[in-house]
Amino acid sequence: MSLEKCLENVRAAHPLIHCITNYVTVNDVANILLACGGSPIMADCPDEAEEITAVCGGLCVNIGTLNTATIPSMLLAGKKAGALGHPSVLDPVGAGASRLRTDTALSLLDQVRFTVVRGNMSEIKALERAGAARGVDADVADRVTEENLPAAAEFVRSFAKKHGCVAAVTGAIDLVTDGGKLYAIRSGRPEMSNITGTGCQLSALTAAYVTANPRNALEAAAAAVCLMGLAGEIGYNAMRPGEGNSSYRNHIIDAVCNIDGRTLKSEANCEII
Amino acid sequence: MSLEKCLENVRAAHPLIHCITNYVTVNDVANILLACGGSPIMADCPDEAEEITAVCGGLCVNIGTLNTATIPSMLLAGKKAGALGHPSVLDPVGAGASRLRTDTALSLLDQVRFTVVRGNMSEIKALERAGAARGVDADVADRVTEENLPAAAEFVRSFAKKHGCVAAVTGAIDLVTDGGKLYAIRSGRPEMSNITGTGCQLSALTAAYVTANPRNALEAAAAAVCLMGLAGEIGYNAMRPGEGNSSYRNHIIDAVCNIDGRTLKSEANCEII
Amino acid sequence: MSLEKCLENVRAAHPLIHCITNYVTVNDVANILLACGGSPIMADCPDEAEEITAVCGGLCVNIGTLNTATIPSMLLAGKKAGALGHPSVLDPVGAGASRLRTDTALSLLDQVRFTVVRGNMSEIKALERAGAARGVDADVADRVTEENLPAAAEFVRSFAKKHGCVAAVTGAIDLVTDGGKLYAIRSGRPEMSNITGTGCQLSALTAAYVTANPRNALEAAAAAVCLMGLAGEIGYNAMRPGEGNSSYRNHIIDAVCNIDGRTLKSEANCEII
Repeated sequence: MSLEKCLENVRAAHPLIHCITNYVTVNDVANILLACGGSPIMADCPDEAEEITAVCGGLCVNIGTLNTATIPSMLLAGKKAGALGHPSVLDPVGAGASRLRTDTALSLLDQVRFTVVRGNMSEIKALERAGAARGVDADVADRVTEENLPAAAEFVRSFAKKHGCVAAVTGAIDLVTDGGKLYAIRSGRPEMSNITGTGCQLSALTAAYVTANPRNALEAAAAAVCLMGLAGEIGYNAMRPGEGNSSYRNHIIDAVCNIDGRTLKSEANCEII
Repeated sequence: MSLEKCLENVRAAHPLIHCITNYVTVNDVANILLACGGSPIMADCPDEAEEITAVCGGLCVNIGTLNTATIPSMLLAGKKAGALGHPSVLDPVGAGASRLRTDTALSLLDQVRFTVVRGNMSEIKALERAGAARGVDADVADRVTEENLPAAAEFVRSFAKKHGCVAAVTGAIDLVTDGGKLYAIRSGRPEMSNITGTGCQLSALTAAYVTANPRNALEAAAAAVCLMGLAGEIGYNAMRPGEGNSSYRNHIIDAVCNIDGRTLKSEANCEII
Repeated sequence: MSLEKCLENVRAAHPLIHCITNYVTVNDVANILLACGGSPIMADCPDEAEEITAVCGGLCVNIGTLNTATIPSMLLAGKKAGALGHPSVLDPVGAGASRLRTDTALSLLDQVRFTVVRGNMSEIKALERAGAARGVDADVADRVTEENLPAAAEFVRSFAKKHGCVAAVTGAIDLVTDGGKLYAIRSGRPEMSNITGTGCQLSALTAAYVTANPRNALEAAAAAVCLMGLAGEIGYNAMRPGEGNSSYRNHIIDAVCNIDGRTLKSEANCEII
């Protein structure tokens, strides 16, 4: 399925996404879901997690600002999504920064079959190191460059195979793969890392994309990554003199509102390797 | 009391509003309270809920992202506001989407006499269906149109009468009533629903308006609804090429800063039926 | 150390700041940390608080929207920062508004030696009144003016001495002192108080500044206060017709992105008394 069609399916299906997500970037996550054509419901109390998952089409679990009340909700929601066949995305924010985050992400990966895991290379490596007794040794670099691209691609492919998911590992070059076919995406701007939450926003976009394109999770995840990168470029070009990261944030979400399928297709820098 | 006078009273009184509100839209809620001339205090821990209510002039309870710690705070704060004669607003966000939300909203309605209940038609209907043994059957449409306006108005009137509150049910046509007189407000833009939290923001505005106009809760709630709708129109007209929902959010809050009583009076599309 | 050098050290060191902060303003806090050259990690679960503190360079504790789970995290993180010699900032948001806030702030001050305490005069006075058996009587005015500046300066000096910290008390005139040398800063705009979270943002900036300038905490705190004030002025001048507090918020964070050391040095209105 083409990137263009993936985008158009989101706009047509208006997928409703249950987000258990950190409170730092939650407002931007909600607005970018609306911008892309989806709808958000945020709910993190264990007493309603499963019910909310059930009324939604897809799930996005983001472990930033996790706590002892929300971790059970993540597991309950993840299992419910699995039982109902709903697409789900895991964003292991800060895996490696604390045992609680690493353990929670590993526990979620063990108990839930996520459609997509979306993180940066450091987070994915931290998960592989922590779970090393069980798997791949994470000796790739944290920063993907043209030089180390083959090794990084192999690492991400093995992660995807092991967890039976699409892995979307984003950075200077974004890698999206189901273990076989791999998209290397060179859209986006380095200045996006000066805004809090562009990763969280991408994870939510990815949830909307795989929910509206359930039989084409790999292409849908790649389309979401292309969309975010392209929005980063368009948003950057929209910046006026004197503007900085706060306005850039607005321009990116605005761009997601306005990008159509044709633009996504023609402008995204997306190579299959 | 005129819409104009309601607005001017808010700017003169600077009402301090205790918000127990969801973490998705809380920043915009705080900024729109400041924009209208009020001040926010957010506090949701049961150990301080009553004390914070007591130092404020009014209360806004919003059940989005409710949890087992904040639900008791909502009840404590609501009862304290009642005991002190402080105006209060309930926003039953997502009532109907989970039993926890529906039950919490019903429990709040049973134990607290809110000055205003502000929600969309689906939420209000969900409350009436869930509480159906005790009341009105909710068979009106979720979307108020010119055609079904009389039935919708009757339904909202009966909700207001039953709960002894002003009901402000917002959508394509907003209905605000105390069970008798009813304001049908046709301000606003459909694009406002592409921004997260315009409903939450309106609920907080309404709390500020009824707090600064305690003897005219119906008119004050109608004025808040008109203000939000007019801000949605002015904000929409302020949009530049390439902008989307993130900038629109800023324009709306900015407009609330700048709308004066005369503009509210002359521009709001507000009919009494 | 000069204001200019303090700023440049932040841009060079990219200090990573652990924030336990309220959910109202947390997104702006994260973005302003990125804007100034730092990086944020938000983490408030007791199960990871100490570990996150340990991987960061500095700590910012803000008691807005505190609750029974986050209060222990504040204490754990504060003690850990102390044990590791990491700079730390306390923002006693709303001290005086509830016993929970006052007691939590006092308990933190008792158990943790903060590098800087940053608040408004009402909050600092509330702490001194509540702890009066142990200290200074807080009979200064809540609003610092040219007339009462000497008394206010004496009060802030005594607070700093008593707690062994730098005190940064902000308002119409900002006072920053370690108990001896005192900076009186007259930058900023009164309209900044119409935006939620400018105080929270300043506290986080201060944490970044003292972390990147650990041997010059007083100068670093003064530089952060000057930066925020100057950003308030530049942001105000950037406002276009029809804009209000929501856009002003963006302009201020944008300005923090763009202010360089030379501009800070030449434009800040900072007197040593």
